[in-house]
Amino acid sequence: MTTKWVYFFGDGQTDGQQHDKNLVGGKGANLAEMVSLGIPVPSGFTITTEACVQFYHNGEKWVEGLEEQVKENLTRVEQAMGAQFGDTENPLLLSVRSGARVSMPGMMDTVLNLGLNDVTVEALANKSENPRFAWDSYRRFLQMYGDVVMGVEHDLFEAALAAKREEQGVKLDNELSLEALQELVAEYKDIIQKSAGRLFPDDPFEQLRGAIDAVFRSWNTARAIRYRQINHIPHEWGTAVNVQAMVYGNMGANSGTGVAFTRDPSTGENVFYGEYLMDAQGEDVVAGIRTPHPISDLEEEMPHVYTELVEIYKLLENHYKDMQDVEFTIQEGKLYMLQTRAGKRTATAAVRIAVEMVKEGLIDKETAVLRVEPEQLDQLLHPMIDPKAKYEVIATGLPASPGAAAGRIVFTAEEAEEWKNRGEQVILVRNETSPEDIGGMDVAEGILTARGGMTSHAAVVARGMGKCCVAGCAAAQISEANKTLTFGDTVLNEGDWVTLNGTAGEVIVGKVDMIEAEVAGDFATLMEWADEFRALGIRTNADTPHDSQTALDFGAEGIGLCRTEHMFFEGERTSLVRQMIFANDSAGREAALAKLLPFQKGDFIGIFKAMEGLPVTVRLLDPPLHEFVPHDEETIKRLAADMGLSVDTLKARIEALEEINPMLGHRGCRLGITYPEIYAMQARAIFEAAAELTKDGVKVLPEVMIPLIGTVEELKLMKEVCVEVADQVMDEMGVKFEYLVGTMMEIPRACVVADEVASEAEFFSFGTNDLTQMTFGYSRDDAGTFLPEYVEKGILERDPFQSLDQVGVGALVQMGVEKGRSAKPNLKVGVCGEHGGDPASIDFFHRVGLDYVSCSPYRVPIARLAAAQANIRNPR
Amino acid sequence: MTTKWVYFFGDGQTDGQQHDKNLVGGKGANLAEMVSLGIPVPSGFTITTEACVQFYHNGEKWVEGLEEQVKENLTRVEQAMGAQFGDTENPLLLSVRSGARVSMPGMMDTVLNLGLNDVTVEALANKSENPRFAWDSYRRFLQMYGDVVMGVEHDLFEAALAAKREEQGVKLDNELSLEALQELVAEYKDIIQKSAGRLFPDDPFEQLRGAIDAVFRSWNTARAIRYRQINHIPHEWGTAVNVQAMVYGNMGANSGTGVAFTRDPSTGENVFYGEYLMDAQGEDVVAGIRTPHPISDLEEEMPHVYTELVEIYKLLENHYKDMQDVEFTIQEGKLYMLQTRAGKRTATAAVRIAVEMVKEGLIDKETAVLRVEPEQLDQLLHPMIDPKAKYEVIATGLPASPGAAAGRIVFTAEEAEEWKNRGEQVILVRNETSPEDIGGMDVAEGILTARGGMTSHAAVVARGMGKCCVAGCAAAQISEANKTLTFGDTVLNEGDWVTLNGTAGEVIVGKVDMIEAEVAGDFATLMEWADEFRALGIRTNADTPHDSQTALDFGAEGIGLCRTEHMFFEGERTSLVRQMIFANDSAGREAALAKLLPFQKGDFIGIFKAMEGLPVTVRLLDPPLHEFVPHDEETIKRLAADMGLSVDTLKARIEALEEINPMLGHRGCRLGITYPEIYAMQARAIFEAAAELTKDGVKVLPEVMIPLIGTVEELKLMKEVCVEVADQVMDEMGVKFEYLVGTMMEIPRACVVADEVASEAEFFSFGTNDLTQMTFGYSRDDAGTFLPEYVEKGILERDPFQSLDQVGVGALVQMGVEKGRSAKPNLKVGVCGEHGGDPASIDFFHRVGLDYVSCSPYRVPIARLAAAQANIRNPR
Repeated sequence: MTTKWVYFFGDGQTDGQQHDKNLVGGKGANLAEMVSLGIPVPSGFTITTEACVQFYHNGEKWVEGLEEQVKENLTRVEQAMGAQFGDTENPLLLSVRSGARVSMPGMMDTVLNLGLNDVTVEALANKSENPRFAWDSYRRFLQMYGDVVMGVEHDLFEAALAAKREEQGVKLDNELSLEALQELVAEYKDIIQKSAGRLFPDDPFEQLRGAIDAVFRSWNTARAIRYRQINHIPHEWGTAVNVQAMVYGNMGANSGTGVAFTRDPSTGENVFYGEYLMDAQGEDVVAGIRTPHPISDLEEEMPHVYTELVEIYKLLENHYKDMQDVEFTIQEGKLYMLQTRAGKRTATAAVRIAVEMVKEGLIDKETAVLRVEPEQLDQLLHPMIDPKAKYEVIATGLPASPGAAAGRIVFTAEEAEEWKNRGEQVILVRNETSPEDIGGMDVAEGILTARGGMTSHAAVVARGMGKCCVAGCAAAQISEANKTLTFGDTVLNEGDWVTLNGTAGEVIVGKVDMIEAEVAGDFATLMEWADEFRALGIRTNADTPHDSQTALDFGAEGIGLCRTEHMFFEGERTSLVRQMIFANDSAGREAALAKLLPFQKGDFIGIFKAMEGLPVTVRLLDPPLHEFVPHDEETIKRLAADMGLSVDTLKARIEALEEINPMLGHRGCRLGITYPEIYAMQARAIFEAAAELTKDGVKVLPEVMIPLIGTVEELKLMKEVCVEVADQVMDEMGVKFEYLVGTMMEIPRACVVADEVASEAEFFSFGTNDLTQMTFGYSRDDAGTFLPEYVEKGILERDPFQSLDQVGVGALVQMGVEKGRSAKPNLKVGVCGEHGGDPASIDFFHRVGLDYVSCSPYRVPIARLAAAQANIRNPR
Repeated sequence: MTTKWVYFFGDGQTDGQQHDKNLVGGKGANLAEMVSLGIPVPSGFTITTEACVQFYHNGEKWVEGLEEQVKENLTRVEQAMGAQFGDTENPLLLSVRSGARVSMPGMMDTVLNLGLNDVTVEALANKSENPRFAWDSYRRFLQMYGDVVMGVEHDLFEAALAAKREEQGVKLDNELSLEALQELVAEYKDIIQKSAGRLFPDDPFEQLRGAIDAVFRSWNTARAIRYRQINHIPHEWGTAVNVQAMVYGNMGANSGTGVAFTRDPSTGENVFYGEYLMDAQGEDVVAGIRTPHPISDLEEEMPHVYTELVEIYKLLENHYKDMQDVEFTIQEGKLYMLQTRAGKRTATAAVRIAVEMVKEGLIDKETAVLRVEPEQLDQLLHPMIDPKAKYEVIATGLPASPGAAAGRIVFTAEEAEEWKNRGEQVILVRNETSPEDIGGMDVAEGILTARGGMTSHAAVVARGMGKCCVAGCAAAQISEANKTLTFGDTVLNEGDWVTLNGTAGEVIVGKVDMIEAEVAGDFATLMEWADEFRALGIRTNADTPHDSQTALDFGAEGIGLCRTEHMFFEGERTSLVRQMIFANDSAGREAALAKLLPFQKGDFIGIFKAMEGLPVTVRLLDPPLHEFVPHDEETIKRLAADMGLSVDTLKARIEALEEINPMLGHRGCRLGITYPEIYAMQARAIFEAAAELTKDGVKVLPEVMIPLIGTVEELKLMKEVCVEVADQVMDEMGVKFEYLVGTMMEIPRACVVADEVASEAEFFSFGTNDLTQMTFGYSRDDAGTFLPEYVEKGILERDPFQSLDQVGVGALVQMGVEKGRSAKPNLKVGVCGEHGGDPASIDFFHRVGLDYVSCSPYRVPIARLAAAQANIRNPR
């Protein structure tokens, strides 16, 4: 039995096995599917991916049997279309397109209008009664064939075309006369002969053979290989080739073309939606030279075609059980479907369609939950620029934190607070932000920085606050001294209005209208369904009662990361923190800490109350002390006076805290080891808050997290400090409360010795930000100089700070989980890095058996959905 | 059958099983061993470690049968010593000492003179005819017993003693009169009663019971527990207790005491060596109040004792087959041996003794190789301060690079070179050094820095150069502006002489005499033997032909790390490097690189020639570019002028290169990815050098090492650059040469995905310095603020930059080796971090199957010996 290399479709018939994408590629399978459903599709055939594989095995020659099968199937196409390939009266014209197993958009080659030559072009002219159309098609064919099949520089054709336009004194190609087009055809043939060193083949079958070869070869162009490397597509797959009869929507008044969606892709409403143009080709609809008509107009214009189209769209949606995006052409009154695929849609539409399709009985809840991209939900969670608004983008930066905001620009955190107190909306503009700017960031509508990446301080804090941020906007020149923000020639002064679109990273001069994003009832329904399916718990990263409440409203089930350092930056606390840092000895530190204690305790009371009955993981002080010290002369002078130190002494102490690599320096539990009194104060604040609330009947579940643990001994010592304080507090206040002491897993070594660490830890929480920094040896503050290039060159598939590097960092996470549970089988394990809100990472965390993920409040719904999808794909 | 809890020794008899250290502890086994050999030892008995374990199992009570066995054995001791415990005429006195399986020096308790009370003290006074001796012994016993057994504050006794001295108007305890001592005894008893709340027990057996309990309990004091944690000694072991008859060397003119070595511990010469004092106790020999006599004098003074002693030492050395350190006491003409143990010795002695013992047939070569501590050899490889010289140490820093050096102080690298050119010896004094100081470091005799740790730039470079360095000398205040070096009140000016002892970290004002360390013929012999046993190859880290030659002379078998960045800091190269860095575009960079090429090529020709026929691993550029940029105003101005840039522009570009965490920044292969032309130039320099030498018939084996690889894609791209250049060079020069392209394994991720990396790597070389930094999250530049405390508190057993953290970092190394070889079974794997010269780390690298270690030239002999020992312990 000879192998079947070619599969026919069309005229209501398909060959067997044709729905196997691996064999006939995605496009081929889809076309066959439509034919099977009885939908009119221009006839054609698909050459299998295996034929492509054999082509390469045979030294770029067709496998035995392929030519016969192509010819046989060509005959079937001729019969189905009632036209002959190369015929002098009614010539069949073909398109030749690639079609791999998965879409590789724009990577491989296509040839259209194949079959034209000096003879058939006349037949086409006669038949269409439109010689200009026929010769223009011929010219395009020569250009495409010359470029794709014969390797002629595209520019040569373009130059000839431009010369012809000039000669004719016209601006556009479609203003060229028939004669001009005929001359161009002759010139193109010359170009081909001279450049390729051989004649353009008149013989249609030779043309076809060349086009098929070219598509086969386009599988292995440098750009296609690179694309596959980046997207991890195996090189062995090969591409299928789809040869299909051409149909034309531009053959007169009863021809036309259009695109449509089976539901409204913007709103999700269950209406037929689309547009069309009569006497036009597909590209005309897209190009926007003529204004297309709404699809409903077609009902009047061509009622029988419209009726057929409606039947087809319903059939397709019912068949695929998803909203479809279809392309069609009407050739001389006859409707042909050219493509159907799942339609792209807005988040609003995605949610509505998923929920309504369940209600319609078309899909089940599980499918609905899988149907919405978690990342898309982000659109539903932030204000956005009114889609109807007209505006001009002056500069683009990184889309660091989504949503949009308008406000008047200010250049320091202090000014932001002053303006806000006067009732102004402000946008905080900084070269980069530091922890000292927290207050200003908190009151600003949005934040714009000139430097820093997606995980810069501004970006991370803004996302945590659910506040719009455009970061790393290199075009922004900021002078804090002159209070100016300059983009090229445009100089903005303090108080001028700007609008930021954090979702797109856009900066706009002036105030643009906003709309509050609509959180429809369907959204809530979908979230409920997601919760039914997920196995992972969803917590949030929150440092304030306000953030805690926001996260609760979004469905958070606890706090996975409460950072205590931000609490050190408010009002008079800053001064106390600095007095603690610069104290002469541990007694001096303790005195300052004693004054800080009531503040910290107040913080925890507020958060514990908001999270009543839910676990709250509090991370003890993490950043190096240098982050808390003053840098401006005046503050230094004041602090020195307050502390009875000389300015020089204080400056020397500030300098002594500087580190060459602060990320790898004296921070986290290393501070706790050298200054145990700091952690003791924080533990006391946590436990006194817990004790008070417990007395008041509020259920509190504090989990004390020790950061930056690299050895079990560190954890042991710090746990001792916490347990001792807890015992004291319970004793002093005469009340018992539950609590845990655990560790942040963020040092590679901790993962390697996780079994040891687990012997002392009551829980693990992976800090994948720092773990990524150290596992890769990347400083996220500095990686901007090479990381974008790494992603661009495909060295890294994605920025590992945005989506967990599953192979490397993930392997350490997995090792940490496995070793940890080998020592303590019921060890509770979560993650609290930025990755806790990234769907792909959440899928990984689900698979390695984490108990929960923690993310910023505004990503909680995304995490809920992603966790549900993860569990549907890989049930626990 | 009842368990045997107590083992007797003395009078030529021992009980069975007494040589089992696990049962009777180290001291007990040793005493029994001597008795078995017929050596006179004061009789006694050992209570087993098992009895201690049972003591804790029984709630701190003696196990059944112990009391009976103690009493039985006490009787045997009485019989052997001809004295009765508690006797009114000839009382037996006892010492009670701990003795664990392994020595825990100073951790546990001892009680001496036990058995004294108001009655027996008189007997002792009569028998010794020395009432003062008897009452002083009684006083000492009360003080020790009160402190150790009854928990009385030591200070209370010291205060009474001081009061007594004052009352008597004397300065020293031994000036107190008999009456004063008798009064003190009464006062001590009062102190005990008041403080302990009970009477001092007169009954000798009660005393003994209390002392044994106290020794048992001393196993579990906080400091003992901590010591065991740090030294990984199991808590379950327990301690044995040695109860032994007291003998006294201070009972008159025919009593005495001494210490001796069976060979000279300084030179290793095979002579009996030691000293003694008549009518004295052991502590008198040590205290130095009286000058002891050389042991040879004893031959005349007490010929029969001397003859016996000589017989004993020969017996012991023959028995233990190692040089012994013995303690003895002569009590009224009778010789007692109190202790024998392997004697500490200098490196010179260790080598000589090991080699001579083989020649004497006492031990085999394997034993000889195991007998010398590799680390000790360091003493033999550097000049040192004449042991006879008298000098005063003004300050101490870290012993960053061994050896000693004297010179005149200078404060900048430029001055160092100027002074050197004038023929002066200089010591370079810097707060810390940077790569710009290389030239000055190279000409200096030694380097002193005020800041930085054992792996600071100064330390690492100095060790690499084999040059003496004292680093992190915090007491040194350095003013480069005033050209002063101040220690407290002492101000030294430029040109003043100082001497550094890098082996001990000492700074000495003035010029002290040096001796060139003697590399005796025995040393070479031992090294040859070591080479017979080792499996690991030994390479060196060397950047110059000179270093290469030094290492070759020390036995290196190749270069494991040739850093190319140091080559960028010489003369006019620096300017070219800077022009490259600040070029506007890749064309500008290439122009500067083209000028650098001949220099780099020259470097490699020199090194390849020196290492003819041996592999040379060249690491391509690694440090961030910021390390190469100028910081002083004048150089910036000159460079700006050279490059036709404004000073402001240049400064802005310098600033743009600054990084927050340079260790985790734009360096290593990341530079190669963003500026492939840099690596291409370096590859060309390597390969052109290889090609030229190959043409000249010199065998060259270059191994190009790509630093900081975290993903296989990086290696793939950089390897492509190298292979392309190699092909070009072979083509251009018409010659073939062998070469490898491999990777430095120093990023944790590379270890995790080592199988992927190995698919592209032709070798791995672990860079354990950076791997340690990233695995722990420690910056070695900054870790000085907490790392010493970590080691002190036992959080880390050793500084992980000095000795590999085998559990954490080592696990990643092992993973890297195993995964790498799983993909490529014959993958060559080495290590080139600082750990390559550390014996404990070398043992680890041997066990995980590395092919070679690479270390600084001056550590090559150490590595050879350590590798031999590793293979003897765990043969491959």
